[in-house]
Amino acid sequence: MSGIEILGYVAGTISTIVFLPQVIKTWKTKSAKDVSLLMFVFATTSVVLWLIYGLLIKNGSIIYTNSCILVLSLVMLYFKVKYK
Amino acid sequence: MSGIEILGYVAGTISTIVFLPQVIKTWKTKSAKDVSLLMFVFATTSVVLWLIYGLLIKNGSIIYTNSCILVLSLVMLYFKVKYK
Repeated sequence: MSGIEILGYVAGTISTIVFLPQVIKTWKTKSAKDVSLLMFVFATTSVVLWLIYGLLIKNGSIIYTNSCILVLSLVMLYFKVKYK
Repeated sequence: MSGIEILGYVAGTISTIVFLPQVIKTWKTKSAKDVSLLMFVFATTSVVLWLIYGLLIKNGSIIYTNSCILVLSLVMLYFKVKYK
Protein backbone atom coordinates (compact mmCIF):
# COMPACT_ATOMS: atom_id res chain seq x y z
CA MET A 1 0.00 0.00 0.00
CA SER A 2 1.44 3.41 -0.99
CA GLY A 3 1.75 6.41 1.31
CA ILE A 4 -1.02 8.15 -0.63
CA GLU A 5 -3.37 5.18 -0.14
CA ILE A 6 -2.60 5.10 3.60
CA LEU A 7 -3.34 8.85 3.78
CA GLY A 8 -6.72 8.21 2.12
CA TYR A 9 -7.56 5.46 4.61
CA VAL A 10 -6.55 7.63 7.62
CA ALA A 11 -8.64 10.55 6.30
CA GLY A 12 -11.59 8.18 5.71
CA THR A 13 -11.33 6.67 9.17
CA ILE A 14 -11.32 10.06 10.91
CA SER A 15 -14.30 11.13 8.74
CA THR A 16 -16.39 8.23 10.08
CA ILE A 17 -15.94 9.35 13.70
CA VAL A 18 -16.36 13.15 13.29
CA PHE A 19 -19.84 13.06 14.90
CA LEU A 20 -18.83 10.68 17.71
CA PRO A 21 -17.60 13.39 20.18
CA GLN A 22 -20.91 15.27 19.68
CA VAL A 23 -22.96 12.11 20.32
CA ILE A 24 -20.97 11.40 23.53
CA LYS A 25 -21.16 15.04 24.72
CA THR A 26 -24.93 15.29 24.15
CA TRP A 27 -25.51 11.85 25.72
CA LYS A 28 -23.60 13.00 28.84
CA THR A 29 -25.04 16.52 29.17
CA LYS A 30 -28.58 15.71 27.90
CA SER A 31 -28.55 19.15 26.27
CA ALA A 32 -28.45 19.97 22.55
CA LYS A 33 -29.84 23.53 22.56
CA ASP A 34 -26.84 25.05 20.75
CA VAL A 35 -26.55 22.18 18.25
CA SER A 36 -28.09 22.85 14.82
CA LEU A 37 -30.86 20.40 13.86
CA LEU A 38 -30.39 21.37 10.20
CA MET A 39 -26.70 20.37 10.35
CA PHE A 40 -27.73 16.77 11.09
CA VAL A 41 -30.62 16.87 8.60
CA PHE A 42 -28.09 17.91 5.90
CA ALA A 43 -25.56 15.33 7.16
CA THR A 44 -28.13 12.50 7.13
CA THR A 45 -29.38 13.50 3.67
CA SER A 46 -25.87 13.62 2.19
CA VAL A 47 -24.73 10.28 3.69
CA VAL A 48 -27.95 8.55 2.50
CA LEU A 49 -27.24 9.87 -1.03
CA TRP A 50 -23.56 8.79 -0.75
CA LEU A 51 -24.74 5.37 0.43
CA ILE A 52 -27.06 4.96 -2.58
CA TYR A 53 -24.21 6.20 -4.83
CA GLY A 54 -21.80 3.68 -3.24
CA LEU A 55 -24.30 0.83 -3.67
CA LEU A 56 -24.92 1.77 -7.33
CA ILE A 57 -21.21 1.91 -8.23
CA LYS A 58 -20.49 -1.03 -5.84
CA ASN A 59 -17.75 0.83 -3.91
CA GLY A 60 -17.12 -0.82 -0.54
CA SER A 61 -15.25 2.15 0.99
CA ILE A 62 -18.07 4.60 0.23
CA ILE A 63 -20.69 2.13 1.55
CA TYR A 64 -18.74 1.38 4.76
CA THR A 65 -17.75 5.01 5.53
CA ASN A 66 -21.24 6.40 4.98
CA SER A 67 -22.95 3.59 6.93
CA CYS A 68 -20.84 4.51 9.98
CA ILE A 69 -21.55 8.24 9.59
CA LEU A 70 -25.28 7.50 9.07
CA VAL A 71 -25.56 5.65 12.39
CA LEU A 72 -23.96 8.55 14.35
CA SER A 73 -25.96 11.14 12.40
CA LEU A 74 -29.27 9.37 13.14
CA VAL A 75 -28.36 9.07 16.84
CA MET A 76 -27.67 12.85 16.93
CA LEU A 77 -30.98 13.61 15.16
CA TYR A 78 -32.74 11.52 17.84
CA PHE A 79 -30.81 13.29 20.65
CA LYS A 80 -31.56 16.72 19.17
CA VAL A 81 -35.31 15.96 19.07
CA LYS A 82 -35.23 14.33 22.54
CA TYR A 83 -33.04 16.83 24.44
CA LYS A 84 -33.86 19.97 22.38
CA MET B 1 -23.84 13.03 -17.47
CA SER B 2 -25.42 9.83 -16.09
CA GLY B 3 -27.96 9.66 -13.26
CA ILE B 4 -25.32 8.08 -11.01
CA GLU B 5 -22.88 10.94 -11.70
CA ILE B 6 -25.59 13.52 -10.93
CA LEU B 7 -26.33 11.69 -7.66
CA GLY B 8 -22.62 11.91 -6.76
CA TYR B 9 -22.54 15.64 -7.46
CA VAL B 10 -25.73 16.29 -5.42
CA ALA B 11 -24.33 14.24 -2.49
CA GLY B 12 -21.02 16.14 -2.75
CA THR B 13 -22.73 19.53 -2.86
CA ILE B 14 -24.80 18.81 0.26
CA SER B 15 -21.65 17.52 2.03
CA THR B 16 -19.92 20.89 1.53
CA ILE B 17 -22.71 22.78 3.35
CA VAL B 18 -23.36 20.37 6.27
CA PHE B 19 -21.64 22.74 8.76
CA LEU B 20 -23.26 25.92 7.37
CA PRO B 21 -26.46 25.74 9.53
CA GLN B 22 -24.30 25.31 12.66
CA VAL B 23 -22.11 28.30 11.71
CA ILE B 24 -25.22 30.47 11.14
CA LYS B 25 -26.93 29.28 14.36
CA THR B 26 -23.83 29.92 16.51
CA TRP B 27 -23.21 33.29 14.84
CA LYS B 28 -26.81 34.32 15.66
CA THR B 29 -27.04 32.94 19.22
CA LYS B 30 -23.37 33.61 20.21
CA SER B 31 -23.57 30.37 22.19
CA ALA B 32 -21.76 27.10 21.49
CA LYS B 33 -21.84 25.47 24.92
CA ASP B 34 -23.54 22.27 23.71
CA VAL B 35 -21.40 22.00 20.56
CA SER B 36 -18.50 19.54 20.77
CA LEU B 37 -15.06 21.16 20.22
CA LEU B 38 -13.63 17.72 19.43
CA MET B 39 -16.18 17.25 16.60
CA PHE B 40 -14.69 20.24 14.77
CA VAL B 41 -11.10 19.25 15.66
CA PHE B 42 -11.80 15.84 14.05
CA ALA B 43 -13.60 17.48 11.11
CA THR B 44 -10.74 19.94 10.48
CA THR B 45 -8.13 17.17 10.75
CA SER B 46 -9.97 14.90 8.32
CA VAL B 47 -10.62 17.61 5.69
CA VAL B 48 -6.96 18.77 5.86
CA LEU B 49 -5.89 15.13 5.23
CA TRP B 50 -8.48 14.79 2.40
CA LEU B 51 -7.19 18.07 0.94
CA ILE B 52 -3.56 16.82 0.93
CA TYR B 53 -4.81 13.51 -0.55
CA GLY B 54 -6.75 15.40 -3.25
CA LEU B 55 -3.70 17.55 -4.08
CA LEU B 56 -1.43 14.47 -4.28
CA ILE B 57 -3.75 12.55 -6.64
CA LYS B 58 -4.75 15.82 -8.43
CA ASN B 59 -8.51 15.28 -7.94
CA GLY B 60 -10.40 18.55 -8.40
CA SER B 61 -13.63 17.35 -6.73
CA ILE B 62 -11.84 16.26 -3.55
CA ILE B 63 -9.84 19.53 -3.43
CA TYR B 64 -12.92 21.73 -4.01
CA THR B 65 -15.27 19.85 -1.63
CA ASN B 66 -12.77 19.73 1.24
CA SER B 67 -11.71 23.37 0.80
CA CYS B 68 -15.34 24.43 1.31
CA ILE B 69 -15.77 22.18 4.37
CA LEU B 70 -12.42 23.41 5.78
CA VAL B 71 -13.53 27.06 5.71
CA LEU B 72 -16.78 26.29 7.60
CA SER B 73 -14.98 23.97 10.01
CA LEU B 74 -12.35 26.60 10.86
CA VAL B 75 -15.07 29.24 11.38
CA MET B 76 -16.84 26.87 13.82
CA LEU B 77 -13.57 26.17 15.68
CA TYR B 78 -13.13 29.94 16.05
CA PHE B 79 -16.76 30.37 17.21
CA LYS B 80 -16.42 27.50 19.70
CA VAL B 81 -13.30 29.07 21.25
CA LYS B 82 -14.84 32.57 21.18
CA TYR B 83 -18.38 31.81 22.42
CA LYS B 84 -17.54 28.71 24.54
